[in-house]
Amino acid sequence: MLVPIGWDREAGAVRIIDQTLLPCELRYVHITSMNQMCEAIARLKVRGAPAIGVAGAFGAYLGMKERASSATSCDGDFVVALSEVCDTVASVRPTAVNLAWAVARVRRAAERVMSVTSDTAAAIDAMLTEALSIMEEDRRSCELIGINGASLIPDGARVLTHCNAGALATAGMGTALAPIYVRHSQGAKVKVWADETRPLLQGARLTAFELSQAGIDVTVICDGMAASLMAAGEVDLVIVGADRVAANGDVCNKIGTYGLACAAWVHGIPLYVACPTSTIDLSLASGDQIPIEQRSSDEVAIGFGCRTVPEGVAVYNPAFDVTPARMVAAIITERGVARPPFQQGIASIAGA
Amino acid sequence: MLVPIGWDREAGAVRIIDQTLLPCELRYVHITSMNQMCEAIARLKVRGAPAIGVAGAFGAYLGMKERASSATSCDGDFVVALSEVCDTVASVRPTAVNLAWAVARVRRAAERVMSVTSDTAAAIDAMLTEALSIMEEDRRSCELIGINGASLIPDGARVLTHCNAGALATAGMGTALAPIYVRHSQGAKVKVWADETRPLLQGARLTAFELSQAGIDVTVICDGMAASLMAAGEVDLVIVGADRVAANGDVCNKIGTYGLACAAWVHGIPLYVACPTSTIDLSLASGDQIPIEQRSSDEVAIGFGCRTVPEGVAVYNPAFDVTPARMVAAIITERGVARPPFQQGIASIAGA
Repeated sequence: MLVPIGWDREAGAVRIIDQTLLPCELRYVHITSMNQMCEAIARLKVRGAPAIGVAGAFGAYLGMKERASSATSCDGDFVVALSEVCDTVASVRPTAVNLAWAVARVRRAAERVMSVTSDTAAAIDAMLTEALSIMEEDRRSCELIGINGASLIPDGARVLTHCNAGALATAGMGTALAPIYVRHSQGAKVKVWADETRPLLQGARLTAFELSQAGIDVTVICDGMAASLMAAGEVDLVIVGADRVAANGDVCNKIGTYGLACAAWVHGIPLYVACPTSTIDLSLASGDQIPIEQRSSDEVAIGFGCRTVPEGVAVYNPAFDVTPARMVAAIITERGVARPPFQQGIASIAGA
Repeated sequence: MLVPIGWDREAGAVRIIDQTLLPCELRYVHITSMNQMCEAIARLKVRGAPAIGVAGAFGAYLGMKERASSATSCDGDFVVALSEVCDTVASVRPTAVNLAWAVARVRRAAERVMSVTSDTAAAIDAMLTEALSIMEEDRRSCELIGINGASLIPDGARVLTHCNAGALATAGMGTALAPIYVRHSQGAKVKVWADETRPLLQGARLTAFELSQAGIDVTVICDGMAASLMAAGEVDLVIVGADRVAANGDVCNKIGTYGLACAAWVHGIPLYVACPTSTIDLSLASGDQIPIEQRSSDEVAIGFGCRTVPEGVAVYNPAFDVTPARMVAAIITERGVARPPFQQGIASIAGA
């Protein structure tokens, strides 16, 4: 299994795969500062809601470690620095709630230490410990999502997925792809259709890469081909990840998910969403409150080195869309599978 | 208005825009042989159902002109050559019925001459005359489609379109884009969302190019963004072209159209199809009988000049899909607008 993010204790650095170079090059890079981490998250060198949660936790730790000398001068300085660092890291990307959630966790870890001692070095150490915990929890969550979701995938199933919610999006075996990995390891036959996922082609570049490396049957399609495959009876179910899930079960995920959901809906094909409970945001009643990141028009217009949109023509490039809960058959988490009505199921899973 | 195909009498050649070079370069090239024309059609230098009809007619003429010396030796040779040439040209691309339809027309024009005289030169001249007629009829058809469809576009409408069914797809002002050009010329405000249309990006490269050149407000989106725009109330109607329409109103068009139709269906947004009656194939009862062209996986895997699908991973690349008649609000032709039930409306329009 590919490991897109890890802690190199010897180097005191975070080791990530630069995913912008895939599928042509598998390059690991060391991240040693907060700014490097923010840039890696912004440029999608590390991406996927759970993985950017882990990355953000390490990023906040690195930020405080850099400020250690000044931050140790007094408690007040430390508190100000902690606030600045955490706000900076948490705001690099707005949609996936895991980023803010993980940064808040390392921040609270530091604050807990500071509430009993003025040893700022110990507080910063606590941030690293918490980041490592988040990473380990995510690895374990993925495993449980895989186990919990496996029963939804019949032997011989043709599964369609969008973007990359696999090992490359998490610290473990992925979210949407985890049940597929588990079924594959059980000897079941699973065929995967991978939407290439414009504009940044995470499906073609990443999902196809990691599934083929694992020996799983995968075929890449353009996003616009999914509906005709459904009409031809070639898709049994759809599984996607999520960047944020509202309390009512509305799911925010990579742009294109909602169009896929419409097609699945028309054909009566179940759409499953797989995510850790850290992706569920109980503070939002519904999906229309989720902030949608708008990204550069160049990602669409000259995304792969050549211009495909005429110079001067407008481009609209939202990174995510929202699928209403009524189109979701189930939400698979590490704590169990929520079924409609989601309001109740989600509260009991994520509120615990 | 851009003219993607025309006859250069002086040069005795067909002049086309090499559309594979757009939007970066507007280059006209001369086509002087059947093989050149077949290659231009196969490689999508000239594309769009009506335009490849015109191109095919010229291609068959060029093929017979090349064989003129041997074909004039006797009537029998001419008949054999005509059959070979027409079959070759008509089979370059299988889905758009206009290609076979136009080639059959120039073939019949030659056969009509041969039925009254053995002057093969006159028969070949008749093929050119017929090709020019087809081109002129298409120009006029586009104009009438524009006029007939204009009433469906309210002032201020936000219109979403897929692929390119504009001037660059025809010998005139286009099919799907014709009503937009007409409304624009009437002073109406029309905003166009252009699906970029993977894999070959005809929406980004061609539709955006020709609309922006005409001063019409156009914004490019990735195909997967259309559904979320519909959910946000940003789309009033969808207009697309067609490559073949069956007798029951099922519409075969560029891959991705059906996914768009599903999204429009879910949102109650009307989907209009604009095409000349030459695109209607009354010999097919329904869309599932339409042959779907499968194209090279490289168009998806290394379409932008760099590899985006890992080496060795399977790619599925159908060029078209079929939208069932029930999802089509109206079919706009040069002879009028057919509404459901289409069986009847189409027969009265296309059977005439």
